[in-house]
Amino acid sequence: MAVPSYTVVEGGSIITPKGFRASGLHCGLKKTDRNDIGAIVCEVPASAAAVYTTNLFQAAPLQTTRDSLANGVLRAVIVNSGNANACTGTQGDADASEMRDLAAKSFGVNPEDVAVASTGVIGENLKMDCVRSGIARLADVLAGDADAGEQFSQAILTTDLVKKELCVSLPIDGQTVTIAGAAKGSGMIHPNMATMLAFMTTDAKIGSEALHKLLRRTTENTFNMITVDGDTSTNDMLVVMASGLSGQKQELDEAHPDWAAFAEAFVRVCEHLAKAIARDGEGATKLVEVTVSGAESEESARAVAKTVIGSSLVKTAVYGADANWGRIIAAVGRAGVPVHPHTVDIKLGDIVVLTSSQPVAFDEELALEYLKGDTVTISVELNMGEAQATAWGCDLTYDYVRINAAYRT
Amino acid sequence: MAVPSYTVVEGGSIITPKGFRASGLHCGLKKTDRNDIGAIVCEVPASAAAVYTTNLFQAAPLQTTRDSLANGVLRAVIVNSGNANACTGTQGDADASEMRDLAAKSFGVNPEDVAVASTGVIGENLKMDCVRSGIARLADVLAGDADAGEQFSQAILTTDLVKKELCVSLPIDGQTVTIAGAAKGSGMIHPNMATMLAFMTTDAKIGSEALHKLLRRTTENTFNMITVDGDTSTNDMLVVMASGLSGQKQELDEAHPDWAAFAEAFVRVCEHLAKAIARDGEGATKLVEVTVSGAESEESARAVAKTVIGSSLVKTAVYGADANWGRIIAAVGRAGVPVHPHTVDIKLGDIVVLTSSQPVAFDEELALEYLKGDTVTISVELNMGEAQATAWGCDLTYDYVRINAAYRT
Repeated sequence: MAVPSYTVVEGGSIITPKGFRASGLHCGLKKTDRNDIGAIVCEVPASAAAVYTTNLFQAAPLQTTRDSLANGVLRAVIVNSGNANACTGTQGDADASEMRDLAAKSFGVNPEDVAVASTGVIGENLKMDCVRSGIARLADVLAGDADAGEQFSQAILTTDLVKKELCVSLPIDGQTVTIAGAAKGSGMIHPNMATMLAFMTTDAKIGSEALHKLLRRTTENTFNMITVDGDTSTNDMLVVMASGLSGQKQELDEAHPDWAAFAEAFVRVCEHLAKAIARDGEGATKLVEVTVSGAESEESARAVAKTVIGSSLVKTAVYGADANWGRIIAAVGRAGVPVHPHTVDIKLGDIVVLTSSQPVAFDEELALEYLKGDTVTISVELNMGEAQATAWGCDLTYDYVRINAAYRT
Repeated sequence: MAVPSYTVVEGGSIITPKGFRASGLHCGLKKTDRNDIGAIVCEVPASAAAVYTTNLFQAAPLQTTRDSLANGVLRAVIVNSGNANACTGTQGDADASEMRDLAAKSFGVNPEDVAVASTGVIGENLKMDCVRSGIARLADVLAGDADAGEQFSQAILTTDLVKKELCVSLPIDGQTVTIAGAAKGSGMIHPNMATMLAFMTTDAKIGSEALHKLLRRTTENTFNMITVDGDTSTNDMLVVMASGLSGQKQELDEAHPDWAAFAEAFVRVCEHLAKAIARDGEGATKLVEVTVSGAESEESARAVAKTVIGSSLVKTAVYGADANWGRIIAAVGRAGVPVHPHTVDIKLGDIVVLTSSQPVAFDEELALEYLKGDTVTISVELNMGEAQATAWGCDLTYDYVRINAAYRT
């Protein structure tokens, strides 16, 4: 693989790209004193794009954000954790709308330039007293320093064990362009869904249309390729804002000579966040990566990879460090896409366990040792074509059951 | 509901319908001394039909059975547990074929009239020495008494905790027609898939075409509506044989005045076996029943019911006796079929928790008490049409993880 043209910015966060400030604090939505409300504010109108959950029961803030994004411009994102504002009826719609208006007033921007996101318990109305005081205080502590980025990253977490962020930079038109992202993953204190929220900032000069196109394509191969438990949340949202303050001369689009480099860096940030969410899935002890190659189409490759990564039997076998390839081939065979029954090769790491759909004698001790590691790679070669795809997930453990069997109290 | 015209035959089994004998014994495929090979033999050529797994990696015995069933006639079924003979290459095909030939010789029937089924570990070749001696001995102990039926039922189990069988009878043309079934469910000692095998016998006089049509329709609403972990086995098979020895005058088909009664009894046997498999799913403590009504089509209703029953988050909530309806509505919303976001009602047992997609205050103590029971019913009313469907599954527990994380050794 060629050397990438981007470099990782150590200690960088969503405020590192030029033009962004952020803040986060505790307003009372979470029972502990952890941060539960946060904001990102751009000092200029930012080109913006978003992708949303495909769940038909979309939470109230998604519609609010969709309205704000109609013109492809955002100045701010307001986000709370501890309550998803989902299945909350007309009161929920009103609350999301009020969050938007309050944030706009507090940050001195237009309501139509504010995106709203929520994550947490489903079916309970927001404690708007907490939200109101929180938003008022957020404006006072908005800052562009590392601590502000950290406070924001903390504010979006629920039972995530680690924060997920990455910042990269690359030269474009002789200027440094920076791209950063922060995400929350799967696991909630109280209930419910493996809700996924992600926020990206960049100082690249790029129109919202090009940004949206890149975002959709990238999401397809990153965020849409992870699974913790197969349950699609009502609140998933990824919002990206581009301030355009990098100093580039030429706006980025597919005709720009540095487009490929920018897209590569953009993908890297998304892939990093997506993998971090998978690794920190509820109860997970390992990251599992499934690469399917030799497929007839990318859609086929994706379908097979997602079926294998989502199989409870594969996930428990990985937890048990059991080289149980029979479960992998069985998952391949039920993916709903054409697969030739006699041409499949399977590897666990570098260990070949199946060739042309027939068992290969392998060293069980070596396989056990490999599967005990904290990252497990499963390679499936279909030998039917040239397309490939990778999916990420985690193992299924006692802790997943413990976390999710807990009473909501 | 009208009173059914069939009655349950207490103590009945697959040898109760006229014309059938069975046997089962231990031949060495399982490490314990539990039965691991069995047979059902019909004294006359039986009209027969079967349905098979949709997994693309079908085990060797499935093709053998398909060949035998080409003419719609069977005299015998030979089945082993402890080894699935799946992903075993050309040797596996040869072994399945040899099983068929040996059984035919041993039982004095034509090889083309023998179905073969296997369940157990994937990817290991059958110990044919064990199989050969087992088949030779099976012929000696074939019998039509209750013990023979019991031995057969035991021979098809793997880690099933209980055997699954039902026998019903009803009058047709003034004669008693009997229908019986035995099944194995999900859970294996060593490996692997939630392999499902089911065998049905009846002495009804019915052609293989009518039988096949009834079987396919019934399977759609019974066996195809259960899930333990979403993993479709490579070995699933359901075989039904009709001896025609009931003494009926008129062959059963849709024109027969008693067709509806026969079909109802047939469905009852299938539904009983399917529910028994779901209740005895790996690690399960409860049977979960999801009924979706008010759907635009039966396909939609089935898709929603299967998505809810398969949701890991719903399954863990049921295990934890948590009335977490947010997970149910979220599963409804990702089922991949059109659902109106504002018209859904949800009940847990008789407890209404959601009306028109909005939360309803309910007694949490009462809900907890209900969810602690050994059967949990979830009702989802979509309010879009008249179609409905029911799916069955089980909770997701620590024991599921324990059973499936175990090393294969």
